[in-house]
Amino acid sequence: MPSVLVLHGPNLNLLGLREPGVYGTLTMEDINARMVDLGKELGVEVRCFQSNHEGVLIDTLHEARTWADGVVFNPGGYTHTSVALRDAISAISLPVIEVHLSNLHAREEFRHTSMISAVCAGTISGLGVQSYLLGLRGLAGIIKDPGH
Amino acid sequence: MPSVLVLHGPNLNLLGLREPGVYGTLTMEDINARMVDLGKELGVEVRCFQSNHEGVLIDTLHEARTWADGVVFNPGGYTHTSVALRDAISAISLPVIEVHLSNLHAREEFRHTSMISAVCAGTISGLGVQSYLLGLRGLAGIIKDPGH
Amino acid sequence: MPSVLVLHGPNLNLLGLREPGVYGTLTMEDINARMVDLGKELGVEVRCFQSNHEGVLIDTLHEARTWADGVVFNPGGYTHTSVALRDAISAISLPVIEVHLSNLHAREEFRHTSMISAVCAGTISGLGVQSYLLGLRGLAGIIKDPGH
Amino acid sequence: MPSVLVLHGPNLNLLGLREPGVYGTLTMEDINARMVDLGKELGVEVRCFQSNHEGVLIDTLHEARTWADGVVFNPGGYTHTSVALRDAISAISLPVIEVHLSNLHAREEFRHTSMISAVCAGTISGLGVQSYLLGLRGLAGIIKDPGH
Amino acid sequence: MPSVLVLHGPNLNLLGLREPGVYGTLTMEDINARMVDLGKELGVEVRCFQSNHEGVLIDTLHEARTWADGVVFNPGGYTHTSVALRDAISAISLPVIEVHLSNLHAREEFRHTSMISAVCAGTISGLGVQSYLLGLRGLAGIIKDPGH
Amino acid sequence: MPSVLVLHGPNLNLLGLREPGVYGTLTMEDINARMVDLGKELGVEVRCFQSNHEGVLIDTLHEARTWADGVVFNPGGYTHTSVALRDAISAISLPVIEVHLSNLHAREEFRHTSMISAVCAGTISGLGVQSYLLGLRGLAGIIKDPGH
Amino acid sequence: MPSVLVLHGPNLNLLGLREPGVYGTLTMEDINARMVDLGKELGVEVRCFQSNHEGVLIDTLHEARTWADGVVFNPGGYTHTSVALRDAISAISLPVIEVHLSNLHAREEFRHTSMISAVCAGTISGLGVQSYLLGLRGLAGIIKDPGH
Amino acid sequence: MPSVLVLHGPNLNLLGLREPGVYGTLTMEDINARMVDLGKELGVEVRCFQSNHEGVLIDTLHEARTWADGVVFNPGGYTHTSVALRDAISAISLPVIEVHLSNLHAREEFRHTSMISAVCAGTISGLGVQSYLLGLRGLAGIIKDPGH
Amino acid sequence: MPSVLVLHGPNLNLLGLREPGVYGTLTMEDINARMVDLGKELGVEVRCFQSNHEGVLIDTLHEARTWADGVVFNPGGYTHTSVALRDAISAISLPVIEVHLSNLHAREEFRHTSMISAVCAGTISGLGVQSYLLGLRGLAGIIKDPGH
Amino acid sequence: MPSVLVLHGPNLNLLGLREPGVYGTLTMEDINARMVDLGKELGVEVRCFQSNHEGVLIDTLHEARTWADGVVFNPGGYTHTSVALRDAISAISLPVIEVHLSNLHAREEFRHTSMISAVCAGTISGLGVQSYLLGLRGLAGIIKDPGH
Amino acid sequence: MPSVLVLHGPNLNLLGLREPGVYGTLTMEDINARMVDLGKELGVEVRCFQSNHEGVLIDTLHEARTWADGVVFNPGGYTHTSVALRDAISAISLPVIEVHLSNLHAREEFRHTSMISAVCAGTISGLGVQSYLLGLRGLAGIIKDPGH
Amino acid sequence: MPSVLVLHGPNLNLLGLREPGVYGTLTMEDINARMVDLGKELGVEVRCFQSNHEGVLIDTLHEARTWADGVVFNPGGYTHTSVALRDAISAISLPVIEVHLSNLHAREEFRHTSMISAVCAGTISGLGVQSYLLGLRGLAGIIKDPGH
Repeated sequence: MPSVLVLHGPNLNLLGLREPGVYGTLTMEDINARMVDLGKELGVEVRCFQSNHEGVLIDTLHEARTWADGVVFNPGGYTHTSVALRDAISAISLPVIEVHLSNLHAREEFRHTSMISAVCAGTISGLGVQSYLLGLRGLAGIIKDPGH
Repeated sequence: MPSVLVLHGPNLNLLGLREPGVYGTLTMEDINARMVDLGKELGVEVRCFQSNHEGVLIDTLHEARTWADGVVFNPGGYTHTSVALRDAISAISLPVIEVHLSNLHAREEFRHTSMISAVCAGTISGLGVQSYLLGLRGLAGIIKDPGH
Repeated sequence: MPSVLVLHGPNLNLLGLREPGVYGTLTMEDINARMVDLGKELGVEVRCFQSNHEGVLIDTLHEARTWADGVVFNPGGYTHTSVALRDAISAISLPVIEVHLSNLHAREEFRHTSMISAVCAGTISGLGVQSYLLGLRGLAGIIKDPGH
Repeated sequence: MPSVLVLHGPNLNLLGLREPGVYGTLTMEDINARMVDLGKELGVEVRCFQSNHEGVLIDTLHEARTWADGVVFNPGGYTHTSVALRDAISAISLPVIEVHLSNLHAREEFRHTSMISAVCAGTISGLGVQSYLLGLRGLAGIIKDPGH
Repeated sequence: MPSVLVLHGPNLNLLGLREPGVYGTLTMEDINARMVDLGKELGVEVRCFQSNHEGVLIDTLHEARTWADGVVFNPGGYTHTSVALRDAISAISLPVIEVHLSNLHAREEFRHTSMISAVCAGTISGLGVQSYLLGLRGLAGIIKDPGH
Repeated sequence: MPSVLVLHGPNLNLLGLREPGVYGTLTMEDINARMVDLGKELGVEVRCFQSNHEGVLIDTLHEARTWADGVVFNPGGYTHTSVALRDAISAISLPVIEVHLSNLHAREEFRHTSMISAVCAGTISGLGVQSYLLGLRGLAGIIKDPGH
Repeated sequence: MPSVLVLHGPNLNLLGLREPGVYGTLTMEDINARMVDLGKELGVEVRCFQSNHEGVLIDTLHEARTWADGVVFNPGGYTHTSVALRDAISAISLPVIEVHLSNLHAREEFRHTSMISAVCAGTISGLGVQSYLLGLRGLAGIIKDPGH
Repeated sequence: MPSVLVLHGPNLNLLGLREPGVYGTLTMEDINARMVDLGKELGVEVRCFQSNHEGVLIDTLHEARTWADGVVFNPGGYTHTSVALRDAISAISLPVIEVHLSNLHAREEFRHTSMISAVCAGTISGLGVQSYLLGLRGLAGIIKDPGH
Repeated sequence: MPSVLVLHGPNLNLLGLREPGVYGTLTMEDINARMVDLGKELGVEVRCFQSNHEGVLIDTLHEARTWADGVVFNPGGYTHTSVALRDAISAISLPVIEVHLSNLHAREEFRHTSMISAVCAGTISGLGVQSYLLGLRGLAGIIKDPGH
Repeated sequence: MPSVLVLHGPNLNLLGLREPGVYGTLTMEDINARMVDLGKELGVEVRCFQSNHEGVLIDTLHEARTWADGVVFNPGGYTHTSVALRDAISAISLPVIEVHLSNLHAREEFRHTSMISAVCAGTISGLGVQSYLLGLRGLAGIIKDPGH
Repeated sequence: MPSVLVLHGPNLNLLGLREPGVYGTLTMEDINARMVDLGKELGVEVRCFQSNHEGVLIDTLHEARTWADGVVFNPGGYTHTSVALRDAISAISLPVIEVHLSNLHAREEFRHTSMISAVCAGTISGLGVQSYLLGLRGLAGIIKDPGH
Repeated sequence: MPSVLVLHGPNLNLLGLREPGVYGTLTMEDINARMVDLGKELGVEVRCFQSNHEGVLIDTLHEARTWADGVVFNPGGYTHTSVALRDAISAISLPVIEVHLSNLHAREEFRHTSMISAVCAGTISGLGVQSYLLGLRGLAGIIKDPGH
């Protein structure tokens, strides 16, 4: 059974506690549970991980090369500036789907650019937890039909 | 049964014929057929329309106010410059999901900005026909659970 | 009796229905009625037209050369990008007054620039329907006293 | 009877003497006379003032809080740079109409931006003395019908 | 005999009537007649078309795939902003020569950039009707010797 | 006993009256009273002055050379543009602390830059009247221990 | 007794050793000691922490939610680029005072912008250790009188 | 005998006292004395004036229309931002020579642009008091031979 | 018989040897031969010259004033930066046609701007040797019918 | 014997595995072995370290103050954005040579700027493993002849 | 007797022949004659030289180190782009006065910046031949009183 | 034995005489002697050349195609602007190593960009004469092992 890493970037551990006006009341654990459930439905094993450390996120992506078939990744605040994460995504030969809970284009100007998108297989944003769930669906499709 | 407009912008009528290296060999009719099928699965009626005319796209969005519950919209080349389409989306009170076949961030600089995203419920790009299909899933979720 | 074209650009047909917080509850028909009334007071015949199509707006400006003595024009979302409309205004030798309902400088950055203003006789913005009515007064003054 | 301040910014005292190719031959006194006349017609008292001093213009706006119901203001060269005047307009709770004799968008690039417009009720430019007269009409409308 | 589409963009229908200081007194019909004549000399059939509508220009380029061997295209005011026209040119596999009557670099700053040039076989500007005629010569050469 | 000039720039005379949502209800006189009190506590004489005139602010800084040991300065709207005030601060050899009531970085883009900060001993912003009081404390520290 | 986190960002552990021309000879331990002393005077418990790791700084801010009433934060080199730290400050509902030892506006251009300031209660810079001490005073004021 | 206004902008009254490393030890009075002397040599009457007030500088330029034949003007810190002074120079029909003591291009970036130069007859900078003296010579030449 | 200078800028002497993927296998001598032949057909004498030296190109343009009636000029890498060549073209009163072998807009960003185009009669690019040949035709037309 | 730290930034642990088209097939261990060998030849002890964590890289640079005489540093993706690493290099008083395997100027635009170079003794890029080896040679020269 | 190099850059050999509307009818030889005459009056030997070659201008500046005491230099079109000329001026230890015949700020945008000014003793522009003559006077003053 | 061209750009002939604070006291002849010596050690013949003329540098690069196996090139001030030199490097099929004596990133902003680097095999800067020597070592490595 294919395996998928769901990787949450900085501050997502506070989800549900943090700025509910922007991010809603769902916690990260709620998202993870729904991702595992959907994974079962789609026939993929889902493992979830979060870190506030750019370096740990890079390490985790590197390690995923040894066990995962793809990544659903919310890079949080590192989205807009991290060349190192971009290079990590390029360096591993796994499909990565970039997801965002909120609609970044409706927020501050500096959130309108992404260092990450260009090296991802696809990007989904603005749909809350649906961004993650649709990202997993899209990734499962790519894993099962790489030539898509 | 809720209804959804699938709206294709300029040049998408040539899909499958045009730059297959970038866009693949699937035609717009193939996409439409898969959208109608998925609509049935999700319990939403899907109606598809394409135009190369910015004005016709605006008219079509306006008319959708009278019959549709949401829109999956690929604005094509108008994505990057059309204030008029942005205003049309704001003016109708329907959820709109912006979709793109290709990963715009991996293409020319001028394709990295969108006039449309800020007023859409969400954006999905880079996943080929999956961008449309996931867009329809996301939209169906919003229509059935507007408070999501 | 001199004749004036009142030309409404994209999305103005939804006026009164669309974002009343920004644009108020007056409909385009209400504006047209008040413009015709003021036209009678000022001794100018007023004909109103709206289109969401950039090309139709250009065609309409071209045709106005054959019957109108001036234009009150709200270019809507085309204000900020349309070189073709700018060229159309330059091409016809009629005085054009650019009008906007809302105060564009108090809205998004991209609404602060106009491709149109430089080739118009004058610009009036931010005053709701008064922008149109004052525009007609200003135009009537120019038509009756071209040397003003 | 409501009262209106007509406030002229720097160099407008030389009007009629200065660059007639750009500004025409009407003097500031001529404008003032026509404004007073129109004020009578509209039932508003008009008081006119000019200064080349940014600080005096601010002082005058502050004082207007105690006696005026609105302002027609031509900020001249301070239009493009003065945050202090912008703050003064925000600080007084009077409607202000920004007016310009010439079409700023048809002149040098640095005249295309305004620090003032975003905090004004409306802006009228390019119509010579008509910019002032229409500004007074628009202001009178707001004063009499604040909810407009 | 090879066929060529000569496509005129917005406002070119007013040629000869419009700003003769910039564009001269030749009408679009005069240009078309000279293009047909030169086509006969070069052994290519020339069909001419004009529209002010971006969408109609796109439709016309799409249709040209079925009958033409190349296009001489003056995109007019759409030159500087239209991604949709650029995509249309990429989408059809015909050589397109971009032509302009006036020297765009000697005019306003916003006319110095082209969204179109990068996807055309070549660009000719500043030479009045000669821009069209030389464009047809260049296109005929490409059609007859695609490897050139 | 050392002496300190507390200098208020444009519009601060309206404090408490002006935009209480942004600036609170404290008046400038309230601030002055608290500054004089704190001065007594710290053993420095405090003299307060306000002007809306850039030139008067410069003159006042120049005169301070003859009697003051330092300046607490809120340049208001001149913060973002005034080279002349910057030069005045450089020209007098007194330590100047720049203070702002509101958090300028949380307001409009043009308030994010300061022409003044680079030539001041320090900057304090966002803390309401505390910005002034802490500024006086910091200044008193510098005056008593110039080598700090 | 209220508690305050004093958080030092990257390279501040070398204070006193590093570039004394810019930062003076005081060590971080000296600052911490003075902060604890002042805390006693003001009736707040002060706990100090330093890290060169962006992720550890974020973790520490997150943990502060459980025990602290406010933060005095010198983000060091992360000031100018870290969206993740900005989001962490937004995510915790504690008042944060941003402090800098040196006058950033008198140094390199890239030090003139802050990603952090907009979400802080206030900013103090340029006053050496006084920036920290005044920051603590300001924070104590806010904690004791949140409505300030 | 022709008359010349020598006009000093903000902070020049402190010359010789202020930043001698940049501006030298000569006072403004020294410069004025040397200008009067050179005026005698060249047969022009020289009157000198200084103000820190932008508005007073504008008033003084306006008044010069009634008695002077030309102006030597050091706009100081207003050089880089003042549209109002630029307009004042355009408004009076006198030749104005812009002078600067220091080499502005060897100082901060914001001193490299001038709002004033484009409307002056000439500009002289970097030569200390010689900038003034050569400016007077150049102006005397223009006054005596306007066609130069 | 009219005379024409064909002037090749830097690196064109290596044509056919240099980057054939971009520039093809034709040598500069081949181009010159075809230009001389076409010149005979058109009744103009063609003289060809190449230099890698900006100064020699300027000298050659200056000398052309004494014997030539027009210039076909490929400025090569100097196109994008040379104000001196621009001034040389302005200084001689001959029509100059700027030609480029490759489509500059399809190459690096810095090749999208030209310092030269604004002062040339016309520009032709992207058509290989046809750019030169069409340039000569266009120039011959101008020389024979200067009023064109 | 002098000691040298060879410090590898993010993703370099994947060298040889990652994008061999850009970076070749040599692993980081291969580079380290060659660096140690060259160190022996040059009479310097070489210790190698890699981390994906910006904070760990800073810590490692700080510790190097206690044992190393210089650093050969490949900052990887942190090159373009890290002010904290720049400050760390400034803070330690060791010569640092910045090295890059690939030619950054031949890659994406955002790789053309470096936050690091300005505070390094020198920079070597584009030469693969030779960049490291030449960097060690250059550093050994500086260590042995600091005055070089 | 001190010696001065008067150095003319590109296209100045055509002076009097070239664009008399911008540059007047005086030839370079006329200027040289007036410079020699003024040199006699001031007691400095004047030698004049012109070249269109950037390299020759650099060589000439280098050689001037062996015989001249200062330079009056009109860099023409190289003013705006030549780092090499800037470096040449820095490299020779002679005072250089930059002169321009026309007012560069009243011409095209790209003429508003100078690569040269920052390393010159002073700059004089806009005064026609007087720019040169005043430049020589200023230079003579510096040569005779280097401490000025 | 392979041959190498060492090419020095503008002003390097003054090395040792020019700005020793920036460039040291070594002359160009000293560098050349050390390069020849190192060449002997590495088994490559070294020929050195210098010119201040961009065109001569291009000619010299062109000629190197006939005798050299690689180039060590210090383009001096042409580094930042010369498209023609960039094209010359592309045009010859030799490996070129760009070298700079000083650390360009620690100098003026305009020295931070290079037109040359993208087409060179590698770049070495900031290490004084070591930049040249290491450049020769790197080049020798490439020549002997082109596949490196």
